[in-house]
Amino acid sequence: MADNSRPARPVVLGQNQYGKAENRVVRITRDGDTHHIKDLNVSVALSGDMDEVHTSGSNASVLPTDTTKNTVFAFAKEHGIDSAEQFGIHLARHFVTSQPAIHRARIRVEEYAWERIEHAGRGAHSFVRTGQETRLAQITYDGSSWEVVSGLKDLTVLNSTDSEFWGYVKDKYTTLPEAHDRILATDVSARWRFDWTDDAEKTPDWDESYEQVKKHMLQAFAETYSLSLQQTLYQMGTRIIEHRAEIDEVRFSLPNKHHFLVDLEPFGLKNDNEVYLAADRPYGLIEATVLREGREARIPADLTNL
Amino acid sequence: MADNSRPARPVVLGQNQYGKAENRVVRITRDGDTHHIKDLNVSVALSGDMDEVHTSGSNASVLPTDTTKNTVFAFAKEHGIDSAEQFGIHLARHFVTSQPAIHRARIRVEEYAWERIEHAGRGAHSFVRTGQETRLAQITYDGSSWEVVSGLKDLTVLNSTDSEFWGYVKDKYTTLPEAHDRILATDVSARWRFDWTDDAEKTPDWDESYEQVKKHMLQAFAETYSLSLQQTLYQMGTRIIEHRAEIDEVRFSLPNKHHFLVDLEPFGLKNDNEVYLAADRPYGLIEATVLREGREARIPADLTNL
Amino acid sequence: MADNSRPARPVVLGQNQYGKAENRVVRITRDGDTHHIKDLNVSVALSGDMDEVHTSGSNASVLPTDTTKNTVFAFAKEHGIDSAEQFGIHLARHFVTSQPAIHRARIRVEEYAWERIEHAGRGAHSFVRTGQETRLAQITYDGSSWEVVSGLKDLTVLNSTDSEFWGYVKDKYTTLPEAHDRILATDVSARWRFDWTDDAEKTPDWDESYEQVKKHMLQAFAETYSLSLQQTLYQMGTRIIEHRAEIDEVRFSLPNKHHFLVDLEPFGLKNDNEVYLAADRPYGLIEATVLREGREARIPADLTNL
Amino acid sequence: MADNSRPARPVVLGQNQYGKAENRVVRITRDGDTHHIKDLNVSVALSGDMDEVHTSGSNASVLPTDTTKNTVFAFAKEHGIDSAEQFGIHLARHFVTSQPAIHRARIRVEEYAWERIEHAGRGAHSFVRTGQETRLAQITYDGSSWEVVSGLKDLTVLNSTDSEFWGYVKDKYTTLPEAHDRILATDVSARWRFDWTDDAEKTPDWDESYEQVKKHMLQAFAETYSLSLQQTLYQMGTRIIEHRAEIDEVRFSLPNKHHFLVDLEPFGLKNDNEVYLAADRPYGLIEATVLREGREARIPADLTNL
Repeated sequence: MADNSRPARPVVLGQNQYGKAENRVVRITRDGDTHHIKDLNVSVALSGDMDEVHTSGSNASVLPTDTTKNTVFAFAKEHGIDSAEQFGIHLARHFVTSQPAIHRARIRVEEYAWERIEHAGRGAHSFVRTGQETRLAQITYDGSSWEVVSGLKDLTVLNSTDSEFWGYVKDKYTTLPEAHDRILATDVSARWRFDWTDDAEKTPDWDESYEQVKKHMLQAFAETYSLSLQQTLYQMGTRIIEHRAEIDEVRFSLPNKHHFLVDLEPFGLKNDNEVYLAADRPYGLIEATVLREGREARIPADLTNL
Repeated sequence: MADNSRPARPVVLGQNQYGKAENRVVRITRDGDTHHIKDLNVSVALSGDMDEVHTSGSNASVLPTDTTKNTVFAFAKEHGIDSAEQFGIHLARHFVTSQPAIHRARIRVEEYAWERIEHAGRGAHSFVRTGQETRLAQITYDGSSWEVVSGLKDLTVLNSTDSEFWGYVKDKYTTLPEAHDRILATDVSARWRFDWTDDAEKTPDWDESYEQVKKHMLQAFAETYSLSLQQTLYQMGTRIIEHRAEIDEVRFSLPNKHHFLVDLEPFGLKNDNEVYLAADRPYGLIEATVLREGREARIPADLTNL
Repeated sequence: MADNSRPARPVVLGQNQYGKAENRVVRITRDGDTHHIKDLNVSVALSGDMDEVHTSGSNASVLPTDTTKNTVFAFAKEHGIDSAEQFGIHLARHFVTSQPAIHRARIRVEEYAWERIEHAGRGAHSFVRTGQETRLAQITYDGSSWEVVSGLKDLTVLNSTDSEFWGYVKDKYTTLPEAHDRILATDVSARWRFDWTDDAEKTPDWDESYEQVKKHMLQAFAETYSLSLQQTLYQMGTRIIEHRAEIDEVRFSLPNKHHFLVDLEPFGLKNDNEVYLAADRPYGLIEATVLREGREARIPADLTNL
Repeated sequence: MADNSRPARPVVLGQNQYGKAENRVVRITRDGDTHHIKDLNVSVALSGDMDEVHTSGSNASVLPTDTTKNTVFAFAKEHGIDSAEQFGIHLARHFVTSQPAIHRARIRVEEYAWERIEHAGRGAHSFVRTGQETRLAQITYDGSSWEVVSGLKDLTVLNSTDSEFWGYVKDKYTTLPEAHDRILATDVSARWRFDWTDDAEKTPDWDESYEQVKKHMLQAFAETYSLSLQQTLYQMGTRIIEHRAEIDEVRFSLPNKHHFLVDLEPFGLKNDNEVYLAADRPYGLIEATVLREGREARIPADLTNL
């Protein structure tokens, strides 16, 4: 029991949270021979009156992370999984309302999509993972107000033309030639916050909203004649705010995945925007929030750690 | 020049190969306003009279890996990329026939698939990566005979019923209860070898072949009532051999991705094959070759290192 | 030029930043035959008057990310790399003071450690990567005040005894048995903020500080008889605050890497805390800030995205 | 029960194997207050009379992969873990001798190293993972003869001088300038095969052998004045074969991790082998076997899949 008892006067406990991360829950529902699947990775983070567990080691107000795990799986049975957002609302409400010491619950969900395998056999219980983007949801509840942030990551997109980059600042370290026709490619990582905060209001249709946001984002990426990735980002965000009244704020983190035109002249060949080297690192990283006028920005600035 | 010159008598150089790995080449082709994209990761491995470079440090017979990289990008312009297999054939032929010291070339390709973004703007040059499986091709040439092995990895599939596992050996370490209705899930990693070996023969339609093999594989997975993952694997291989005359051999490496039925009884709930925990490790690993009668097995046994 | 010109009235640009991420710079310095190595991964994020690039596509105030990359490599020559923190200070100061449109620069650095290979040959220019933790530094400058946050990630530690967990809340979803002797293991991810903010003050000895913080962290982990991972975390933070006057705040993100005692009774064996299964997911995730009394907490709560 | 019963005449089952992969076993042993730790990732692959399970679905000769997992954990108690190699020998012998249908067992092990945390508290039960290379072992038994292949991966090494590359073949795709002083860096992946095959012979001292092989490998890397990575590889292999009589064969897979000298002339700076960009892809990949004269090469050529 080394030095646990030493007086720790000048030290204060700040923000803290705990819970079970990455609960991989798969929920099957049956409609006769037709099965449906939901495949989630659920992480729980709880905050509240937790000073004692840190300072004295007393666990008297700690609901074990193992219990939060059990709750995730039990709720998959009790409530089903209608959507990641709805499932997170059930969980967050439960932790805050059932435990006096827990004042805030935040549920984060990754969702993996599946599609049916077409075949001639009986039943409909065979699936193949789509493998495109990972859908995200974050639900936070403090006992009175809700915050729901949905999102996606790893949605890789590319325009093979209609992208330029010129007219920028030149200083003594600038060597980049201006580009009047380049590839523009990125892995979209985005989060968007709903205006829904109050149990008394009707919740959005989470799945419909997700599909529409993704559609607008992809279309804005494709339809924007780009003078910079910043401009494309802003168009993507604007499109969402303008078309989806339920969303107040969007945050993007967009790596500029450089595709370098390969110099083929040494081999007597002309490279007319045909052959590119897709580079790994370094990459530009463009991040911004687009929000509805008059609303507050609440999504944290850094979606990645780089 | 430390001890390079010490006599190394009892030591012999065995199999060796070298080349540039992971050349990320993106090829855009234009059909008016409609663009097409090929996105490959190409690795080159060359063998031949390479004793001197190892033993004396003389590079007189070494074509630098940097040159093999340049060749990949130059060939993307000179020959285009019709398919990963055809592109690999161009490259392998070039290295073996143009360099006296190179007796064997092996080209490995990973291919990433893209689909078009539907939108109302002008042109057709916007793409989103499908993100499902990675397509694979390996082309080997020794100056007289070809070996082409195609494949895929990371194709994740799941049957939510019609899978059993019972009637197995029990020993003193056996605790597994028999299962009469379980989830069967795996990440398909497969390689298949073509019977085409000779320049005088017509090459297969590589893209059509790939689509058909993938279709048969998925359908066999979905249509097989499974008594073990081994049995499902064998049906998947059999289906390919029976339907695709151009293929002589298929090798599978199939992790049995366990989905454990969660015990909800402590919470007063019945889990009627509804709620599962998707586990990471350990996992069963089932590997086998299925081949056409009378043909030789040539695909190596271990597609993974575990 | 699709819909770039549409009036985007109800939409506002929020926080935004951009720069080149993951510049992998290796710096060799020579002291006769003895070489020294610094191996960094540097990411630049700049903010300021960047509305126009987002809304109109004008790049007139944009220093290209390519230029920020060039600056990283040029500064490695011009200033050398004394420490990650000092290198970041040079870069941040440069961007803010040389570009009117840039009002804030944030430099993030990952540093990989190397040790010398002991050998009998001449010179001292051979290194092997230590491979233990990755050192981190984040330097932020707004033209008047500095914020330096150092840290580390992936420092994996384990106590094979002197860890208990009991006396916690039980609810209807609790099944965890109390533990009076368990393994405690975690991958330490930590960030600590220095009290240095002003160019007029003397900077800390960054390398000495890092070594001491790591030492105190490890010793506190080892010497604490643990009643919970929260308690161990708090001791680790307290030890740093108490011993290192230059540090005002520490944030930890500690996964509880579960090691489950394997039930060997079915095989007639007793498992006296000898054989464990190291599990992957889910895991507990314990996060908290420990800070010096009277100081403000500024390190963001979420060091991971789960 | 779709088409499981169709006659599959032209199809033959080839090589097949199965077992539980990635069993993460941690074994603690106590010597009073001093604890010792072994941390392994064990994968089992079994072969034998397994036609029926593939073709008819009968599991009558299948020892479930779950049982092979249980055996790994039970043996960690029954036999302890003296070394990865000895542990694998126990397991392989058990599977082959106890199950008539199993004719060959292959055990693969990854081992993670830990060192003690120095501290002033009581006891010696606190560890930090060293994080350098991962140690590997592969043990194969067919009922009469043993094959033991040990190895390592992810040992990253770098020489900052004493490396050249010139005098190579130039063809029309060659642009690489000759180098007379470059960085040479690689992530060593190596496997070495022991001459021990027979139970009647004394086994090597596995741990001593590992330490010595690693030492010779590192010293040869450091002491070789390199004219190519192939030459360095050959010296590393030769040193092992010459110094370690128990080893017959070594296989290396060495990525040439390019460090490009950055052109600083545009900024008026001279880069005298001081500032490098560490590139990710593509990389050279150099692979070769070095073996004792008169012995057979048995380690497969491809340690990676690229």
